[in-house]
Amino acid sequence: MPASSSASPAPVATDDLLAELRTGLPAEALITDPDITASYANDMASFCEAGSPAVVVLPRTVEQVQHVMRTATALRVPVVPQGARTGLSGAANASDGCIVLSLVKMDKILEISPVDRIAVVEPGVVNAVLSRAVNEHGLYYPPDPSSWETCTIGGNIGTASGGLCCVKYGVTAEYVLGLDVVLADGRLLTTGRRTAKGVAGYDLTRLFVGSEGSLGIVVKAVLALKPAPPQQLVLAAEFASAAAACDAICRIMERGHTPSLLELMDRTTVRAVNSLANMGLPETTEALLLCAFDTADPAADLAAVGELCTAAGATEVVPADDPAESEMLLQARRLALVALEAVKGTTMIDDVCVPRSRLAEVLEGIDRIAVKYDLTIGVCAHAGDGNTHPTVCFDASDPDESRRARESFDEIMALGLELGGTITGEHGVGVLKKEWLSRELGPVGMELQRGIKKTFDPLDLLNPGKLF
Amino acid sequence: MPASSSASPAPVATDDLLAELRTGLPAEALITDPDITASYANDMASFCEAGSPAVVVLPRTVEQVQHVMRTATALRVPVVPQGARTGLSGAANASDGCIVLSLVKMDKILEISPVDRIAVVEPGVVNAVLSRAVNEHGLYYPPDPSSWETCTIGGNIGTASGGLCCVKYGVTAEYVLGLDVVLADGRLLTTGRRTAKGVAGYDLTRLFVGSEGSLGIVVKAVLALKPAPPQQLVLAAEFASAAAACDAICRIMERGHTPSLLELMDRTTVRAVNSLANMGLPETTEALLLCAFDTADPAADLAAVGELCTAAGATEVVPADDPAESEMLLQARRLALVALEAVKGTTMIDDVCVPRSRLAEVLEGIDRIAVKYDLTIGVCAHAGDGNTHPTVCFDASDPDESRRARESFDEIMALGLELGGTITGEHGVGVLKKEWLSRELGPVGMELQRGIKKTFDPLDLLNPGKLF
Repeated sequence: MPASSSASPAPVATDDLLAELRTGLPAEALITDPDITASYANDMASFCEAGSPAVVVLPRTVEQVQHVMRTATALRVPVVPQGARTGLSGAANASDGCIVLSLVKMDKILEISPVDRIAVVEPGVVNAVLSRAVNEHGLYYPPDPSSWETCTIGGNIGTASGGLCCVKYGVTAEYVLGLDVVLADGRLLTTGRRTAKGVAGYDLTRLFVGSEGSLGIVVKAVLALKPAPPQQLVLAAEFASAAAACDAICRIMERGHTPSLLELMDRTTVRAVNSLANMGLPETTEALLLCAFDTADPAADLAAVGELCTAAGATEVVPADDPAESEMLLQARRLALVALEAVKGTTMIDDVCVPRSRLAEVLEGIDRIAVKYDLTIGVCAHAGDGNTHPTVCFDASDPDESRRARESFDEIMALGLELGGTITGEHGVGVLKKEWLSRELGPVGMELQRGIKKTFDPLDLLNPGKLF
Repeated sequence: MPASSSASPAPVATDDLLAELRTGLPAEALITDPDITASYANDMASFCEAGSPAVVVLPRTVEQVQHVMRTATALRVPVVPQGARTGLSGAANASDGCIVLSLVKMDKILEISPVDRIAVVEPGVVNAVLSRAVNEHGLYYPPDPSSWETCTIGGNIGTASGGLCCVKYGVTAEYVLGLDVVLADGRLLTTGRRTAKGVAGYDLTRLFVGSEGSLGIVVKAVLALKPAPPQQLVLAAEFASAAAACDAICRIMERGHTPSLLELMDRTTVRAVNSLANMGLPETTEALLLCAFDTADPAADLAAVGELCTAAGATEVVPADDPAESEMLLQARRLALVALEAVKGTTMIDDVCVPRSRLAEVLEGIDRIAVKYDLTIGVCAHAGDGNTHPTVCFDASDPDESRRARESFDEIMALGLELGGTITGEHGVGVLKKEWLSRELGPVGMELQRGIKKTFDPLDLLNPGKLF
């Protein structure tokens, strides 16, 4: 099995590459100006290596993607697929001399069927555009990563994105029924189905979801939709400790509630959001819990949850009276990562997910780690899923603080694994966590992961150096 | 790539095989009496070839399963894993000289966590046993194949089973979070997670679900659970044509309803059930629709659906007044396949799933096929999912009728593919449909399917001759 590598491939003359690409692509689909290609070098992850692309290609058709892959295979040039580059693990980072294959121009919604509850889309469709379009048909596409206003469905599929909705509606993987994929050698593969069910052969569809562009280029997706639920109503609860908030979360889930959102922000995060946006969130609280229901009677559900929060020691429970107040609270949560970034200029955003029964332990451990490394680490979490985003805030111009930031980041992942969790709940492995993947999966798992990669991409041309 | 084959392997002296197996297994774990081993030769599919096992092994521990696989690899003996053998595609059928590896003695529920909403189980746990056990904790394990009182979770995972619940709750695959799997060479692989979310590497868990024992032996599973919903209430609606019933189904789904069950029985099926169990179902109707809700106010939901049924031309709409009446209607549905079997002694049960918008067309086509081949074909369907079970009733002692039955069966699958569907919604490929798999997946898909098989099982020892 060839070792994966992010190093430059055997050099191909860029002129030869461009000449070959031009035989199947219009001029406007190729960007070669190094000032512009450089802007495609990386996604939103900090501290991830990124190389210089030889060319950026923006195809508009499946045939053009096939031409790119045939060219790449013929000339042995690595290909880095990209969506909106809002990823947080460096999975879309360029490698030196690669073809950056940006799918953003393939942005058509091909079909929306209310009876079959599916949408068929090209990979460059923006998440929010799809969400609004299906909503007009009374339908709902749940996956809602924080970047939903800009990120693409293709990127969501590549990284198996989550979001706020997952505690009730699950992740992107659960909404991908079938795919058209251009393979490394340019052949077109169709996987899965447009039907509600189907078990014909191994589930290749699911294999592509979260594969970070390392197995093929998704050029079309059949997505499952839900009926649009009633508008959700949000409750905010303040706690004097993270442990009390986690206790409330366990009670809520143990009692069989199905909130449409169950989020936690720690004091650092709350203050950062206030400081960025003057939102007037309560600064004296240690943990702010947001819980929402999109049921037929959300006020009744919120009342029940409010009681559980009070029983767990909430110091204040405030149900929103209307959708506008609810939306304000959600807005605060959506601003969390940006707000934390403003604290010291740079952040490393972790993504450790533990069984929700271990959430209090992971939060306590992160506190310890922050003290040990003398760092500000804000935590916001999709708490109902046990999915934390400990966000290390640091000054990147300070080498010692940067070193401590990296070490604390690793220690948080080790803690997550120790508590029976995973190094990544929804952001993926990319470059950022690839050294950690084997610690989670072990040697047998890694051997099979590599075996699958080799089956789909024997020349290691698709996003090499990512994942492992 | 070695061609898959269900033919006998290079002969291994059974004495050598038994001697080696005995070095790691207690005497009571081995069955060699040919009268008894013959009873393990096949599952519940008709017309599927089955060989004679050399030995049946009933391990109780992971180590014993590992010993079996190490022995199989050392001696190059094929292994056919089995659960309760309630499958309908021959996926558990023995091949000549194989080790039948029955997991039914590994039947412990290891853990149930209401906070994390997971259960951890061994593969031999019976579906109904798990369902009842989690229910005592206020939890719900949705997948409910018709055989749920006897089938095992391991078998459900191997075949990716569905059931009546899928229209609301989805299939087995959506409930499998993580697995322990013994590989062909005896090594132990752990996949997935106990957390609500996780995206570390390719989704190997999902690859095993529905792989029919061809990639590894599942020895432990982490399953997701839901909160137990309120008891469901069922409505029955009679229609003068299948087309009208399908129109009602489309209206129900288009209006955003989320029934917990949406089933259809045609006249042949209704009469068969009456004849078997004197249930007093309406014999004059062409299509009987059953719809249920397990919501907070099921009567209100049934009233809304009842109106849609009437608008679509229902001749009679009867909501059940209580759970007992609801259960009687469900019992009728659960008896459908057994009842159809009694019609002419033998059945071939198909499993074609189409987009639900094409359901009327597939039913009309099946009618045509029944006339063309002069056969009785009863249809019951998980109609909300577009998943039909056209059941060809015939006299197996009549060679011409048997031939016509097979031909009609194939023609139904062709029709399903033509309508954008799949050859199998939930029963799997096994032996029964393996010649059809490539017609659905095409050559590129088949090449990758075989590549995956080779990655996991290079010697082709795990359930050879199944799937492809």
